[in-house]
Amino acid sequence: MSARVLVIDDIIQNVKLLEAKLQNEYFDVITALSGKDALKILETDLPDIILLDVMMPEMDGFEVCRRIKSNPRTTHIPVIMVTALDQTSKRVEGLEAGADDFLSKPIKDLPLFARVRSLVRLKMLMDELRMREVTVENLKTIEVVKFPLKFNLAAQSTNILLIESSSSSAQRLSSYMDDFAKVDISDGNITDFNLCRYDLIMISLSLPDIDGLRLCSQIKNCEETRHTPLIVLVDEDENDKMVQAMEIGVMDYLVRPVDKNELIARVKSQIRQKMYAESLRENMKRNMEMAITDSVTGLYNRYFLNNYLKNLLCPTNEDRDSVSIIMMDIDFFKKVNDTYGHMAGDEVLVEFAKRIIRNIRTIDLAVRYGGEEFIIIIPKSDATFVKLVAERIRARIEKIPFKISNHSVPIAITVSIGVSLSADKYMDGTSLMGSADEALYQAKETGRNKVCGL
Amino acid sequence: MSARVLVIDDIIQNVKLLEAKLQNEYFDVITALSGKDALKILETDLPDIILLDVMMPEMDGFEVCRRIKSNPRTTHIPVIMVTALDQTSKRVEGLEAGADDFLSKPIKDLPLFARVRSLVRLKMLMDELRMREVTVENLKTIEVVKFPLKFNLAAQSTNILLIESSSSSAQRLSSYMDDFAKVDISDGNITDFNLCRYDLIMISLSLPDIDGLRLCSQIKNCEETRHTPLIVLVDEDENDKMVQAMEIGVMDYLVRPVDKNELIARVKSQIRQKMYAESLRENMKRNMEMAITDSVTGLYNRYFLNNYLKNLLCPTNEDRDSVSIIMMDIDFFKKVNDTYGHMAGDEVLVEFAKRIIRNIRTIDLAVRYGGEEFIIIIPKSDATFVKLVAERIRARIEKIPFKISNHSVPIAITVSIGVSLSADKYMDGTSLMGSADEALYQAKETGRNKVCGL
Repeated sequence: MSARVLVIDDIIQNVKLLEAKLQNEYFDVITALSGKDALKILETDLPDIILLDVMMPEMDGFEVCRRIKSNPRTTHIPVIMVTALDQTSKRVEGLEAGADDFLSKPIKDLPLFARVRSLVRLKMLMDELRMREVTVENLKTIEVVKFPLKFNLAAQSTNILLIESSSSSAQRLSSYMDDFAKVDISDGNITDFNLCRYDLIMISLSLPDIDGLRLCSQIKNCEETRHTPLIVLVDEDENDKMVQAMEIGVMDYLVRPVDKNELIARVKSQIRQKMYAESLRENMKRNMEMAITDSVTGLYNRYFLNNYLKNLLCPTNEDRDSVSIIMMDIDFFKKVNDTYGHMAGDEVLVEFAKRIIRNIRTIDLAVRYGGEEFIIIIPKSDATFVKLVAERIRARIEKIPFKISNHSVPIAITVSIGVSLSADKYMDGTSLMGSADEALYQAKETGRNKVCGL
Repeated sequence: MSARVLVIDDIIQNVKLLEAKLQNEYFDVITALSGKDALKILETDLPDIILLDVMMPEMDGFEVCRRIKSNPRTTHIPVIMVTALDQTSKRVEGLEAGADDFLSKPIKDLPLFARVRSLVRLKMLMDELRMREVTVENLKTIEVVKFPLKFNLAAQSTNILLIESSSSSAQRLSSYMDDFAKVDISDGNITDFNLCRYDLIMISLSLPDIDGLRLCSQIKNCEETRHTPLIVLVDEDENDKMVQAMEIGVMDYLVRPVDKNELIARVKSQIRQKMYAESLRENMKRNMEMAITDSVTGLYNRYFLNNYLKNLLCPTNEDRDSVSIIMMDIDFFKKVNDTYGHMAGDEVLVEFAKRIIRNIRTIDLAVRYGGEEFIIIIPKSDATFVKLVAERIRARIEKIPFKISNHSVPIAITVSIGVSLSADKYMDGTSLMGSADEALYQAKETGRNKVCGL
């Protein structure tokens, strides 16, 4: 995948070299010779990925990274930090500054392209999820999911699976992670492990009798573990395997002998990225639910009803002539609000919704249509059935008065109900709803607390 | 990227061969020997991509494809149709059945892997957008964006840019697309073209003086054209260029001499995929907007207000002590509903919202809080300014009576208003809102149609 790369380094020869390498692979490159310049560029230009040197005068790479990651506009851009080979301890520092990945000087082509491509691929996915953030931002606010700059992993809640046949190596690697994770060890046979409970899986590619790459591919292709970050362990001469692993979708690799600081930085970085992706997905899901739910009662809202009804009554649905609608309006509801206040009114609405839910099937859909008006959509029903349901709800509302806070005597509530059937040839939503509405009006006009329309 | 591939072919040797090839590249393979078997498998298993033979007894590949694409559960899975080499006319038929891509028998490795990887990459992106569909489906409905099985491209609304230096070739290729698109031709200099208006860009990789791959990468890395499908034209011996193009993110390629049917099928397929992706993005955007908007007035809703206020008053916001709140409640609104009906009530709310919007700045946020209650959040303001705004709104509501349909005499409306300032040390949303609410109560109690709180 091509991408726009920002290279930041105070030594112009380094910048030129990286620029040439990346351009040769058809990346689009922009450059900056200081942290200050880079932050200036980022005010107007948003690259897909940033290569950032640590050692720079004035503002060092850590500080630049911190600023990039704490700015809502740039928090999502992956940063690869470039450190000297003998400074692996710097990596943990880089991680705390928000770095997503690390490269050692002198930069070799293979790790460079593998890491850049892997991060770009992840960013493309996240950009689709972030779209919503951007949308909202344009509309007004800055409700952005922030990249978790500070995150504390606790050994009791972080689970890592290490698949490694050499038990001495497994013990050593596991001990590196003791501080922040509980590590389970497998020698390659994973049948007894519940893979979806792990925050990260580390796989040796030197397992006897087992093709580690095949294992990676299986984990990637399983719905439950698709988003679990994988790190592979390779020997120094196994560049081909490393490249192939990254192509399969493995997120990172470690070269043996494994350096402790490097392992910690890479493992933590992967887990943090997973957390960030999960936050984005959760955020979107929550917002989607908000879009279709009534906030007072938790029932579906009018917007959802319209879409749902359209689907249910569409000509290709074979069951479209067995759809019923129950339309309900709480009698004299304004009096509740006026006498007891809006809070009490809301309590009545919530209890009313609860009683509806308890009296319908899971395939039925309960909706707060607005104010004190509720609707139930009942697929696969006939006149007898829907009349039974409507009458039962009417009775359950009438029978037990509604308790409200700060008021010792429960309030008597009744409901008027109108029903309609698509079998009566009300084949589109509007006429089906209109018919139920007429029946409801009739119930109101002829004394309330009754079911009309059948 | 690894993926789960379903191979469908009635000839077991073909199946075995493809399975071996794909497994060797670490794809996860499932197989079916007939269309019926395949549809059965798809009831429980959802692969990432489907390789489908056309010529099969009983149910042919076209019919299988049609069924896959018209089923909401499987409509999003890319299908690569496998046809005999001399049957390029079958491709247009395959396209109409919903195929996303095409391969000729005997299947060569390079095109196979290039096409599978390209489609898998696209699907991964779309899966993030589809998440919402799946969520809603679990909750209840089937509000899925359908893959556009039937789509008619019109020459006046479909725009294609062909970048090709040989004018005879450009003319010929352009003529193939006359029926369904307006084709602009560039010899390689694109400075005069507005690239973001094209539905597809086709680029020759044999341009003199210009590196076609560099051009592809530039187009992919520009925000406006990031999602525009690219197809490259390569010579038969240019496999390396083709592979590199697909790696950059080019969606498809055509080998010279270009077959007319193949070109039509591939171009149309790419445009259809772009349409599908756009529908998914649009759908998500619309739903996101629904989540934060009041459906009657189009103002922001309570849910959005809470998030917005939290951001505005968060300790890191330097302007948090200059936030004002104007809380409004339309006087005697129930009377409007009772006298003129709910429809008229809604009309009043809509007009009320319009008058608010006309009297605030773009950085202010107008919210329907519920019922007849509205709120304006005014950042960067002081007591003098907010008093001015509140008083102006009060006057504008009182001055011109509200017109409603089916009623010749406009209705007189007034509003009671309470204001509060974060400068008065109401530093969190709850206390700021509480203070405005108290002021509003005071306005109501002391005669209505007035501003209190300052």
